[in-house]
Amino acid sequence: MLKSKKTIAKDLSSIVSDGNVITDESTIKVYAKNASHMEGNAIAVVFPNNTEEVSEIVKYCYKNNIKIYPQASASELTGSSLPREDGVIVSFERMNKIKNINILDSYVVVEPGVRLYDLNLELSIYGFMFPIDPASIKIATVGGAINTGAGGMRGVKYGTMKDWVNELEIVIPNEYGTILKIGCKTSKCRQGYDLVRLIVGSEGTLALVTEATLKITPLPENVITLAAFFDDIEGLVNALLEIKKNKLDILIMEFVDDKSVELTLKVLKINIAGNGHYFVTSIITSPESSERVLSLVENILKRNGAKNVYKAKTLDEAESEGIFDIRRNYDIGLRDLVVKMRKNPASKIIDYNEDISVPPSKLPEAVRRIREIEKRYGLPLTLAGHVGDGNLHPVIKIEEKNIEQIETYEKMKSEILKAVIELGGTVSSEHGIGLDKKKDLIMELKSKNSVKAIDIMKSIKQTFDPKNILNPGKIFEV
Amino acid sequence: MLKSKKTIAKDLSSIVSDGNVITDESTIKVYAKNASHMEGNAIAVVFPNNTEEVSEIVKYCYKNNIKIYPQASASELTGSSLPREDGVIVSFERMNKIKNINILDSYVVVEPGVRLYDLNLELSIYGFMFPIDPASIKIATVGGAINTGAGGMRGVKYGTMKDWVNELEIVIPNEYGTILKIGCKTSKCRQGYDLVRLIVGSEGTLALVTEATLKITPLPENVITLAAFFDDIEGLVNALLEIKKNKLDILIMEFVDDKSVELTLKVLKINIAGNGHYFVTSIITSPESSERVLSLVENILKRNGAKNVYKAKTLDEAESEGIFDIRRNYDIGLRDLVVKMRKNPASKIIDYNEDISVPPSKLPEAVRRIREIEKRYGLPLTLAGHVGDGNLHPVIKIEEKNIEQIETYEKMKSEILKAVIELGGTVSSEHGIGLDKKKDLIMELKSKNSVKAIDIMKSIKQTFDPKNILNPGKIFEV
Repeated sequence: MLKSKKTIAKDLSSIVSDGNVITDESTIKVYAKNASHMEGNAIAVVFPNNTEEVSEIVKYCYKNNIKIYPQASASELTGSSLPREDGVIVSFERMNKIKNINILDSYVVVEPGVRLYDLNLELSIYGFMFPIDPASIKIATVGGAINTGAGGMRGVKYGTMKDWVNELEIVIPNEYGTILKIGCKTSKCRQGYDLVRLIVGSEGTLALVTEATLKITPLPENVITLAAFFDDIEGLVNALLEIKKNKLDILIMEFVDDKSVELTLKVLKINIAGNGHYFVTSIITSPESSERVLSLVENILKRNGAKNVYKAKTLDEAESEGIFDIRRNYDIGLRDLVVKMRKNPASKIIDYNEDISVPPSKLPEAVRRIREIEKRYGLPLTLAGHVGDGNLHPVIKIEEKNIEQIETYEKMKSEILKAVIELGGTVSSEHGIGLDKKKDLIMELKSKNSVKAIDIMKSIKQTFDPKNILNPGKIFEV
Repeated sequence: MLKSKKTIAKDLSSIVSDGNVITDESTIKVYAKNASHMEGNAIAVVFPNNTEEVSEIVKYCYKNNIKIYPQASASELTGSSLPREDGVIVSFERMNKIKNINILDSYVVVEPGVRLYDLNLELSIYGFMFPIDPASIKIATVGGAINTGAGGMRGVKYGTMKDWVNELEIVIPNEYGTILKIGCKTSKCRQGYDLVRLIVGSEGTLALVTEATLKITPLPENVITLAAFFDDIEGLVNALLEIKKNKLDILIMEFVDDKSVELTLKVLKINIAGNGHYFVTSIITSPESSERVLSLVENILKRNGAKNVYKAKTLDEAESEGIFDIRRNYDIGLRDLVVKMRKNPASKIIDYNEDISVPPSKLPEAVRRIREIEKRYGLPLTLAGHVGDGNLHPVIKIEEKNIEQIETYEKMKSEILKAVIELGGTVSSEHGIGLDKKKDLIMELKSKNSVKAIDIMKSIKQTFDPKNILNPGKIFEV
């Protein structure tokens, strides 16, 4: 039998200091949402101030069979941070200190509640940065980014979170609330099995991260940017290949498909004009070589059929020209369209953000198939992504609570993910599995005859979390 | 009861085709050695030709309780590839095909027996490379590099193997010889727990790798190199920090300590001359900016007390000037010294290569303490490493079978590793744990109050390898 809510709140209050437990239902509801349209519930929200308190909370919950749902800004999109009424939200909001910035040793030590944006503000003073930049960077926290295995626009150069975590302090959901340090302060580190990478991307299901040592890197010296419109998507892909072959230091390679460009430019008032598929690439250069590289890439783009090439010698110039605006706002045209199309004028519009990858060579086929699926089902979508590494983010918007649209969306989504798997891609790239992609992950593994991987994961889960009290039901069914 | 050697060899021959099983004892002895001074033994060496054969071998060994020791070039230094007489060596020498080079999608698909050097020869045709470059690159294989979690001289820029593996095909040592594909062809990939990174660095104890999809990257456009001698190691470290702060694209940052420089230059006849601590750094630049960056870094070096600065505008120039020679050959002076010092003129000299890391800021203290330990015990050592990421490789050479020297070495090693841990470093950086570092890993984890990590690893081992038949006794005692 679970204790009463009141008792649990009182008991938790005795662990964390006063004012660090919330039981007010309307406030809990705010914490029980994620950045998608998903909603959960919880007994309480508890805000630990340090690792020892986290360990005490874990011991208490273990003993009393209370589930633990770790969370910080809950900016994720798959439901991985979503709590249920059988447990408490452990929010890392108040563990948000940057403990150490070490330029010589190229690392920072931070608490999980530090926001990526704030970390970068601090690091920029030294000419350094933490390069992982999810679209949610202004609110996303270090702990959330670690658990989600976050990526971003610069992934083609810097990869994802797994490449940037040196050391973690974690609390294991066992009867002792065991505190462990895994990994090293140095970036090279061999300690047997890579437990650090096992936690990165585990979506808060294995352990609670209470401190992270992250690798940092110098800001790029100078960044040039080019953008262009292509009638022919094959031409765009050929340009991409030629750019890759020129020994350049590619920072960003983004794509918006022709239909999304059309929709977006109807709404977005900017100086960038054109039609066709939009391609943007940023390349790190020295100031001395930027003119040459700009010409080189311009020629590659034009040779492969680009129209209206835009160029910027610095990132500031690119921003003031609005070169990234179509890509960043590729769903506002769709929003406009869906608002106009809705049957119930009072209905809220909700987003479904997909997070697929296909090898870049399969981009033309992927776009064709996704647009064909759209046509067949009739729910409009918008399509853009990080084409340098093949990561695409189709967005479908529907009216909230419109059962018919939700059903159609589910069918569309399922067909899109099937197509992605057939093209040798993956159903999740940087958003994770959460609640939303559990079936899709199994479909992907089945296509590789590798469903047994789920059994291995379950066994690992059992090792860390014998009572299944930590963020249960995410990634796979236990 | 184990079957007889003869029966086992016959049974294995029926799985792999004729000529793919070796039972000749003197040949087995050759395969049962690693690149250090360690020797093992085995029932037979079996050479599978494809994944299905690997799976059949596993099934057979599982059923008959025969241990499996996976291996390719056995160029490792910790004993992780060392077999025992209770099992067979499964050599991946003959699974050495490059199956696919895909520049547009930036990956290669290779069998585990492909040598890193050969892979890079092929990739250079396209202006691409696989950047992990252990000193053993000419013989090291992909499978070995994955299992060891290999790094190298370019680690300050490119990290280690964990950062370059997209997808793996593995065979699990269970009764079915289960074949699994884990990870994706694309570099962004979320499939729940990161099983790919769990295999990378697992030293062949969890599964047999039968195919790998590796990320590749363009060759650098142009590389400049500077080298200098410092009387004062603090000056060297300050120079390193200043270089890091200049938003440069650092490829290599190496170090040889003053005593090693002195010993080495007694033997090595090159044009680079000087005394003090040797520092070499290579930086990726455009051709247009190389003059400016050369001056910039030269000024930083001189400002921090560098003498005799050497500069090269290209890697070819650096090689012909011999800028890397002191670093690459930092142990030949020691060899000469030890040969002269030996008591038994016929004795063989054997190497002990350490593989520690300390945060670069702790380099001066690390060098002081290691030299103090040397003085106390009297066995001479040589010291160099990848100072950009803090990874140092002290080498101690002794006479083979000289019990007194071996005992002294063990004491020295133990004290060096203790000092490293006190300085916030790690006892293994890119060579792994194997047999050699098992106790040291526990010492390191103890210092962080994290020995429990070993229990987690054992439980993971049990999940993959329920009968403990795959490379038993490595990393930890089961």
